Amino acid sequence: MVFLDIWAVLRNLEDMISIEKALDIIRQNIPASQLETVSLLDSLGRVIGEDMFSDIDMPSFDKSAMDGYALRSEDIKLPPVELEVIEIVPAGKVATKELKPGKAIKIMTGAPIPLGADAVIIKEDTQYISSTQTVRCFKRVERAANICFKAEDVKKGEMVISRDTKITPQHIALLSAVGKDKVRVYKYPTITIASSGDELVEITQKPIGAQVRNSNTYSIQAQLNNVGFKVTSLSIVKDEMDSLTKKISQGLRADIFILTGGVSVGDYDIVEEVLKKLGTEILIDQVAIKPGKPFVFGKNKHCLVFGLPGNPVSVFVSTEVFIKEVLSILCNDPGLKNPIIKAILTEPIERTSNRQQYLFARCYLEAETNLWKVEPIKGHGSADIASLSRSNVFIIVPADSPPLPSNSPVSVMVLE
Amino acid sequence: MVFLDIWAVLRNLEDMISIEKALDIIRQNIPASQLETVSLLDSLGRVIGEDMFSDIDMPSFDKSAMDGYALRSEDIKLPPVELEVIEIVPAGKVATKELKPGKAIKIMTGAPIPLGADAVIIKEDTQYISSTQTVRCFKRVERAANICFKAEDVKKGEMVISRDTKITPQHIALLSAVGKDKVRVYKYPTITIASSGDELVEITQKPIGAQVRNSNTYSIQAQLNNVGFKVTSLSIVKDEMDSLTKKISQGLRADIFILTGGVSVGDYDIVEEVLKKLGTEILIDQVAIKPGKPFVFGKNKHCLVFGLPGNPVSVFVSTEVFIKEVLSILCNDPGLKNPIIKAILTEPIERTSNRQQYLFARCYLEAETNLWKVEPIKGHGSADIASLSRSNVFIIVPADSPPLPSNSPVSVMVLE
Repeated sequence: MVFLDIWAVLRNLEDMISIEKALDIIRQNIPASQLETVSLLDSLGRVIGEDMFSDIDMPSFDKSAMDGYALRSEDIKLPPVELEVIEIVPAGKVATKELKPGKAIKIMTGAPIPLGADAVIIKEDTQYISSTQTVRCFKRVERAANICFKAEDVKKGEMVISRDTKITPQHIALLSAVGKDKVRVYKYPTITIASSGDELVEITQKPIGAQVRNSNTYSIQAQLNNVGFKVTSLSIVKDEMDSLTKKISQGLRADIFILTGGVSVGDYDIVEEVLKKLGTEILIDQVAIKPGKPFVFGKNKHCLVFGLPGNPVSVFVSTEVFIKEVLSILCNDPGLKNPIIKAILTEPIERTSNRQQYLFARCYLEAETNLWKVEPIKGHGSADIASLSRSNVFIIVPADSPPLPSNSPVSVMVLE
Repeated sequence: MVFLDIWAVLRNLEDMISIEKALDIIRQNIPASQLETVSLLDSLGRVIGEDMFSDIDMPSFDKSAMDGYALRSEDIKLPPVELEVIEIVPAGKVATKELKPGKAIKIMTGAPIPLGADAVIIKEDTQYISSTQTVRCFKRVERAANICFKAEDVKKGEMVISRDTKITPQHIALLSAVGKDKVRVYKYPTITIASSGDELVEITQKPIGAQVRNSNTYSIQAQLNNVGFKVTSLSIVKDEMDSLTKKISQGLRADIFILTGGVSVGDYDIVEEVLKKLGTEILIDQVAIKPGKPFVFGKNKHCLVFGLPGNPVSVFVSTEVFIKEVLSILCNDPGLKNPIIKAILTEPIERTSNRQQYLFARCYLEAETNLWKVEPIKGHGSADIASLSRSNVFIIVPADSPPLPSNSPVSVMVLE
């Protein structure tokens, strides 16, 4: 009897794959990225899927950079000089006259330089004399002064933004100037989530007896909304074959379906069974991660299926580690994943594990040393959302790490 | 004549106030912040306006942290020990029996600890024998092992998040667990924008002759969308009294109205005149900033009015420097403003100004030295969106700075 159980333990250890191995399996099963067309403003923060070219020269004509007078620079080599003002050109209009020696054309910022002019003197260096319709120029100007030349910023046909660039507000300014009201970006997958568990009640309800509010759908939505993804929530599912079958079938229509609860080894954890019955190929069911060891990953036609344990902190960690990895690959955006930085432990970590741990912590830049310090938060494990809410990082402690003394350098996953 | 013009220049210099002075005037005119109620998920990224308290103990009962067997720890002091299994308790259910010496109750993660039990042994350390309906326990467990105690994370009535906290996904997890489906946050102002200029055409149009595409409304929208604000765009307005009056009247209904173009000293720049006619108190009309010197700030009843110059880079800089300052104060969120960090110049900056300059640049962390380096991008001034789009920071050069040699430390405003 005892002998048999040792075998079970050994098998269990073998089934529990490392995080890296799990990520490898997941990566191998991610479908090819696709592109979609979105409106210019909706492309903000997205990764562009094609090179973008300008359809015009920028500027598209020689233009004045300032309000002032267009003139021939050689006419005012010895200021003060008075020139006859023969026309006024506002932005958006073209001068009707050619500029001859001894003449000036009043010009506004952005207006085209009149034919014959080779410089602009700024208004502040002149005085207009209305009685004679002349302008007195008090300074000399160099040839080309205050002129923006045609195509000096961008040439027609020039590539302005290359594919795989993440679109910032600066890019939006440029894309609008080169006439792109629609942009091809890496397509965002559809994401559906649901929570299973007979103990769960809606957050508007006050839990009684053994009930618990369903926070998981909210935290997953917030985590994914936070990096720009919309999420459809199917809310709470009963731990029972028919309800699960119905909800899971619905969830499998999405590109990514995330179900929390029902994946542990408990007697009522029938999610994996229902998933299989619905034709899901289960590729992972346990990962050496703490919290979050019960972790189902599978594939059902086009749908990537994730079964996370019901504990809120496990769900939070699994979403950061696994779901964001999928999104970053599908959308070609490593920026969707949390940054991982090095920090110095302020307190020892005594308890390590045969699984890679993600521990509650607060990280801060210490002013005197200019070093990132990280202080573990003593929490109560995978249901302790209060300690989670006080964390701005997770300390990552590798599987089978020795205990870590104070001042050890550690990797931390940045959450905000 | 020349004498008179010197006076004009002096007056001009006096009217041009410093950025700090301009920000002071703006700050003094920002109305008191208000709160609004939003749904829990919409509170993500917002600053909370009231302390939040828990309506329940968390956990709300002593619960099992693992799948296993609830028992009396003293019963298995000398393992292996076999105990009779008298009941099974799934999550969400309460045991119907009290646990007596020598007995065990099978229990799932999250289920309430039965009366009489003081510990849980994990499933992996046991073997169930169905013929005798007993469980064999292979290890001893300490009292309280694998139990999460009532209220150990949060006590009923305890403050869980204090006002003025910016809501992260971690907070959403906690707020949902304590039943907050609505949250009071600092109210976002309504923002309306418009662009004036006879030269402007929609971005879907190909500019001909002296025309220019209207990129400004897109860049302002992108800059403000990027930090979570919705913006209403009134699009292009003709530089003409009636059109301007109509659009500006419409814009003044918002909490913040931003108009680009028509605020220079050009003959066609009548925006300030129309604003005054509509009862706007003009408080600023020139700021010692480059680009962006023509800058109108005024107040019209509840509405804060900004008139920015038409040049795209001026608009971009003014939005970052002035509009985001207003938003950060109104919404009590300094995080809405761009971070300003120190970096080391890789090239000299020769041309300084009597205005504070914001210069195109790329900043990067140099691997060998672990220092932030910043390389100026040679651009063509305030219309050069191509150089803007290549910038990830602006180098800030103070007014009247001496030329800056290579390796000078400078302040940079981070754009992404």
